[in-house]
Amino acid sequence: MNGNFVYNNPTKLYFGEESLGYLAEELKCYGPTVMLSYGGGSIKRNGIYEAVVAQLQAAGKRVVEDAGVMPNPTYEKVMEGCRKVRENDVDLILAVGGGSTIDYAKGVAASAYCEEEPWEKYWVKQGNPTCKTVAVGAVLTMVGTGSEMNGGSVITNRKAGFKLGKVFGPALYPKFAILNPRYTMTVPQYQMVAGFFDIMSHLMEQYFAGKADCTTDYIAEGLMRSLVHSSRIAAKNPQDYEARANIMWTATWALNTLLKCGKGGDWEVHQIGHAIGLVTDATHGMTLASVSLPYYRHVMGDGLHQFVRFARNVWGVRPEGKSDEEVAAEGLACLEAWMREIGVVMHSGELGVTEENLQAVADAVLILPVGYRTLTRDEVVEILRESM
Amino acid sequence: MNGNFVYNNPTKLYFGEESLGYLAEELKCYGPTVMLSYGGGSIKRNGIYEAVVAQLQAAGKRVVEDAGVMPNPTYEKVMEGCRKVRENDVDLILAVGGGSTIDYAKGVAASAYCEEEPWEKYWVKQGNPTCKTVAVGAVLTMVGTGSEMNGGSVITNRKAGFKLGKVFGPALYPKFAILNPRYTMTVPQYQMVAGFFDIMSHLMEQYFAGKADCTTDYIAEGLMRSLVHSSRIAAKNPQDYEARANIMWTATWALNTLLKCGKGGDWEVHQIGHAIGLVTDATHGMTLASVSLPYYRHVMGDGLHQFVRFARNVWGVRPEGKSDEEVAAEGLACLEAWMREIGVVMHSGELGVTEENLQAVADAVLILPVGYRTLTRDEVVEILRESM
Repeated sequence: MNGNFVYNNPTKLYFGEESLGYLAEELKCYGPTVMLSYGGGSIKRNGIYEAVVAQLQAAGKRVVEDAGVMPNPTYEKVMEGCRKVRENDVDLILAVGGGSTIDYAKGVAASAYCEEEPWEKYWVKQGNPTCKTVAVGAVLTMVGTGSEMNGGSVITNRKAGFKLGKVFGPALYPKFAILNPRYTMTVPQYQMVAGFFDIMSHLMEQYFAGKADCTTDYIAEGLMRSLVHSSRIAAKNPQDYEARANIMWTATWALNTLLKCGKGGDWEVHQIGHAIGLVTDATHGMTLASVSLPYYRHVMGDGLHQFVRFARNVWGVRPEGKSDEEVAAEGLACLEAWMREIGVVMHSGELGVTEENLQAVADAVLILPVGYRTLTRDEVVEILRESM
Repeated sequence: MNGNFVYNNPTKLYFGEESLGYLAEELKCYGPTVMLSYGGGSIKRNGIYEAVVAQLQAAGKRVVEDAGVMPNPTYEKVMEGCRKVRENDVDLILAVGGGSTIDYAKGVAASAYCEEEPWEKYWVKQGNPTCKTVAVGAVLTMVGTGSEMNGGSVITNRKAGFKLGKVFGPALYPKFAILNPRYTMTVPQYQMVAGFFDIMSHLMEQYFAGKADCTTDYIAEGLMRSLVHSSRIAAKNPQDYEARANIMWTATWALNTLLKCGKGGDWEVHQIGHAIGLVTDATHGMTLASVSLPYYRHVMGDGLHQFVRFARNVWGVRPEGKSDEEVAAEGLACLEAWMREIGVVMHSGELGVTEENLQAVADAVLILPVGYRTLTRDEVVEILRESM
């Protein structure tokens, strides 16, 4: 553990098949008006919408409908949500959905009463709210982003030409999150598997940083082992409750600030993935999957000790008679085999990256100076080409 | 992950060499009167007392002195603290010390305004506060108990003949805890090593329960691996900052409610340890160390799958050509070797357990029906005898 840091995560998690039952208790803590934010209507088909609305009605709440939150939520939609919040004097934004919906809800919660331009203030300049903010609660229906227990809010602004993340402080974390593994079981296989890789990417992007021995890395290894084990089961049988429950819990802990304690992070794969998402509108987790192997093979030599550790402790690679480079490469080969087994997209070409838009993607990549190796623009292009 | 559960841990952790600097910010949140609770005066010798008091004075606080909190804090002392709180209208109890001091502070915080008999209400009947409670903050100077981020309060009542633990809810958790690894470096080797085993025992007593595949166990394995690695370094060189920092962080996460999520716990070793502590006043961690091997060897057959897993994932035992029993036994042999290496007390006889007081110890053991095997009183005696 290096340096000084603060850990504070006040989000209350309700986990399990009966967890929606706790919503009534939580609703007592907030005023009469609840904005119900959700996506394209799948929650109406699978019964979750009805179950949530029944609880809201039983609690005597006035419900402000806020449907149509898209994957890769846009700044325009955030502005629309802000207007609804102000016009209806909303007391609680209840996000029912996956990371996109919860990220969106946090963006609205911070922006509704912001007196400056929120995009500039939060996402470009990474400032913090100085205005009144709105409470957010979450009912999670798709796992991956960890948004249910953190301050992350990734928003796409096509006009500005960027998909940017802002990490808000604990005051903007969901006050509570309801985690019912059954609610994640109607997600299509493609989205489910994309979420699995998003989790793995959160774990790896925090793991592949720093040189010190750090307890945090041991926790990350445990979470990776659990994820690999359960995702193999869930990819074959999405209805396996135990596997889906373990994955849901792993996703939450993979990105709730614990795994950055006492160490840095890399996050370049997320930057490249965001750029691909901006240009192609591809599913977030798949954008990460498509570039991870080229990226990690590119920087492996710069953080060799950690790639060796990854191979041994996550994948059980035996080191006897092998060079560090061979052990590290074997670890990445295990990662690749697992990716193929669960069925993620292995090439960015399948997501719509072409020779024609390659430079546009590269232009949208933020290069962070925090990983084992700071990429040049040429290296970004090289990795993107290899990923195609 | 099984069943339904709630996770909510609002304690704010400030970690690192500069962490005391955050105290000023925290003190702003509380009224003018701070009760400073601490132990036998070691914090006056090593400068921590002065540093804390300087911060309290700079913040303009009135300080109520509350020295003399003993290891294994007594109910009588809790009652004395309650009187001080009421007489001085204390706004914050700042516990400076290890688990005993923080456990004590929580006991006082819950009991000061309790209208019933607190011993009966909280520790015997395990009830929850219905009265006004007092805020607790912590400056940690000895690691092990995890009391800095949980609701645990173990109190010894000699008159009643029991040392009992009460686990309060999040409202009684320390509001903040300051974790400076340097502050733990003046603890004598014996106490330091006892703390290391206390941590391991928290990890094992939650790990050795349940049959389901559970992400929580993977996290516990990571924490155990980190603890084993760093404690070997720290036992040889207590001034190794990296090792001490990792151990401090591991201790906090070993018992802050995360590791019970989705599974049960065992906790019989703590019950036997508490009984030994009650009769001999021996150091808590050493009481656990002295009975763990006899206990785990006694119940190994009842939870064999988990002991096999422990051997393989924590100690790297290779299973080829061995029976499950052999693998499991090898894991416990690794545990024993590590215990001898860091230098814990291996026999309860060294702590004062004798043929004469053996029955008194056994009488004080609470038998919990939650582990892989529910002991009979005869088995408790048998384990105690083996431990001598």
